[in-house]
Amino acid sequence: MKVAVVGATGAVGKQLLKILVERKFPVTELVPFASVRSEGKLVEFGGKSIPCKSLTPGCFAGIEIAFFDASDAVSKTWAPHAAESGAWVIDNSATFRLDEDVLLLVPEVNGELLAERVAKGRNNLSPRERILTGPNCSTVQMVVALKPIRDLWGLKRVVVSTYQSTSGAGAAAMEELVLQTEKTLKTKAHSEDQSVEANAFAHRISFNCIPHIGGMKEDGYTSEELKMVAESRKLLGLPTLPLSATAVRVPTFACHGESINIETERPVSASEAREALKAQKGIILQDEPGQKIYPMGMPGTQSPVEGAAGRDAVYVGRVRQDFSVENGLNLWVVSDNLRKGAALNAIQIGEMLVQQ
Amino acid sequence: MKVAVVGATGAVGKQLLKILVERKFPVTELVPFASVRSEGKLVEFGGKSIPCKSLTPGCFAGIEIAFFDASDAVSKTWAPHAAESGAWVIDNSATFRLDEDVLLLVPEVNGELLAERVAKGRNNLSPRERILTGPNCSTVQMVVALKPIRDLWGLKRVVVSTYQSTSGAGAAAMEELVLQTEKTLKTKAHSEDQSVEANAFAHRISFNCIPHIGGMKEDGYTSEELKMVAESRKLLGLPTLPLSATAVRVPTFACHGESINIETERPVSASEAREALKAQKGIILQDEPGQKIYPMGMPGTQSPVEGAAGRDAVYVGRVRQDFSVENGLNLWVVSDNLRKGAALNAIQIGEMLVQQ
Repeated sequence: MKVAVVGATGAVGKQLLKILVERKFPVTELVPFASVRSEGKLVEFGGKSIPCKSLTPGCFAGIEIAFFDASDAVSKTWAPHAAESGAWVIDNSATFRLDEDVLLLVPEVNGELLAERVAKGRNNLSPRERILTGPNCSTVQMVVALKPIRDLWGLKRVVVSTYQSTSGAGAAAMEELVLQTEKTLKTKAHSEDQSVEANAFAHRISFNCIPHIGGMKEDGYTSEELKMVAESRKLLGLPTLPLSATAVRVPTFACHGESINIETERPVSASEAREALKAQKGIILQDEPGQKIYPMGMPGTQSPVEGAAGRDAVYVGRVRQDFSVENGLNLWVVSDNLRKGAALNAIQIGEMLVQQ
Repeated sequence: MKVAVVGATGAVGKQLLKILVERKFPVTELVPFASVRSEGKLVEFGGKSIPCKSLTPGCFAGIEIAFFDASDAVSKTWAPHAAESGAWVIDNSATFRLDEDVLLLVPEVNGELLAERVAKGRNNLSPRERILTGPNCSTVQMVVALKPIRDLWGLKRVVVSTYQSTSGAGAAAMEELVLQTEKTLKTKAHSEDQSVEANAFAHRISFNCIPHIGGMKEDGYTSEELKMVAESRKLLGLPTLPLSATAVRVPTFACHGESINIETERPVSASEAREALKAQKGIILQDEPGQKIYPMGMPGTQSPVEGAAGRDAVYVGRVRQDFSVENGLNLWVVSDNLRKGAALNAIQIGEMLVQQ
């Protein structure tokens, strides 16, 4: 497969290149695209250094799959162009996710929709039908956890509060957490009235939680919170699912955490839910709280817990019956927002195209 | 007033001594108590250095108010002793909070119960009736925010997820956050598989969220989560209020954040809720999200937001109607867990005793 990656030098783009190699994606030729500013910049791929190109009319000729991990504006202009030139487009931006004729995909959750479309054959589809999209990172891990619950007991209502890492805002935001943390400790700004300059976020993120991700929209909700509602409804095939989200940035580097409260249509016990979650493809159940085992977002293994950072699964734990309502459940869900939340999910969509 | 402070060298004890001076509490003599190990250690109070005593039978003779900011075990043994010697006891431990004949108090929420008891006169009360308690830190700020909502629209159900700082686990835990943060950055454990030693918490807290506060109890809930349920019900006078909590430790130094989802009995709009919250004593409304104004837990002022750390109020913002349910509301609440969550609340109880 001749593969293009648009946004190859960004945080998600870098993960994507890494995961393409890890998963032995059948790439015969890789064409990395970046902004005009990064043109010629070398990216590493499978032991080779490849110079980035900038986007120009006709640049997608011969490309079979084009991954887009750039801004909404870049996707808006160039994703249709790639699709018109005959490529499958796998777009991680928000631009097309909610369009009626565009598929929004998490393979474990609604991969069957893609299978139907692929069966028609790439060349028998309209350009719009070749645009495939992945959801917002905080949505992906939530819908994977909700999927087996929906299948077995039905979803009546969901309330979620997020604990989102700085990596969701890109590499520069992660670097700002490093620099601010050092400065905060040095100037004693953690305990005294010392201001710390903030660029990547609305306020300093070092040792602080900021209840503000994305832009402020209608009714006091942020774009991140509204995405979680609209995208989850589309992915789960429940267009009116009652869902309320509060999105909070926390001073961590990797992974998003989510405290999810669920009301199901039919009665479910915590142990039944645990069994269903454990059986779900893409989920690793970490639920032995008495042994200090529950999902967390650090890399490596902090004994006895395998951290979610750098891994593929959606980790679920703290599964509890919620006694405050009929048929209630509480979950704590952690996943790597750059992997399953973005790059890995895109590649899993790509794998479904290759398998056909 | 002759005042004793048990646990004078701990994180809450230190705050208590500071706030007694700040608020000009009428102390004629201060007697600080600490563990045998800290006997003789000097504490600063109103410009004087006073040596700590250890607890011995008869040590509370002549004391009028004894603040307890020590362990559950210390309170269990010594609080009744202080009450028997005639003192009012204001206890911050969990030991007596749920006892039927012991008052659990947040003055703004249920101060009238204390007023009734004080009116009887200290010497006409049984020793048990002289024991007054303050709730768990995460409970205090939640019930202050829920109080005006309960008064005007009734509470049907509450779902809360917490973002709790390391200060809730004491001074050593805050120091561990400093040391682990330095080590995590130095060893690159934020991005690579490097373990970091943890003592104060079950796992490393630097750049990590740990969904585990207190001991693991029945049905997979932690003691912190169960306290929030039981204590809130008692404080709000709603013994069967449906309430579900998920408590998470985050890598911050000061203040607890809470994402609170509320169902009210009667319809309420976000703007009506805002007005009621603004009018509530003890609350500062910070709710101009378009101007980046919402509650956060840092010290000082990170323009344009006055941080909650080191301040007295419960800060409330992100007030939104929750469209996923009839009569739903979302709030983001931040308060200094060592002040309103512990020491300040205890002193406010003390002030009601003095005013009589």
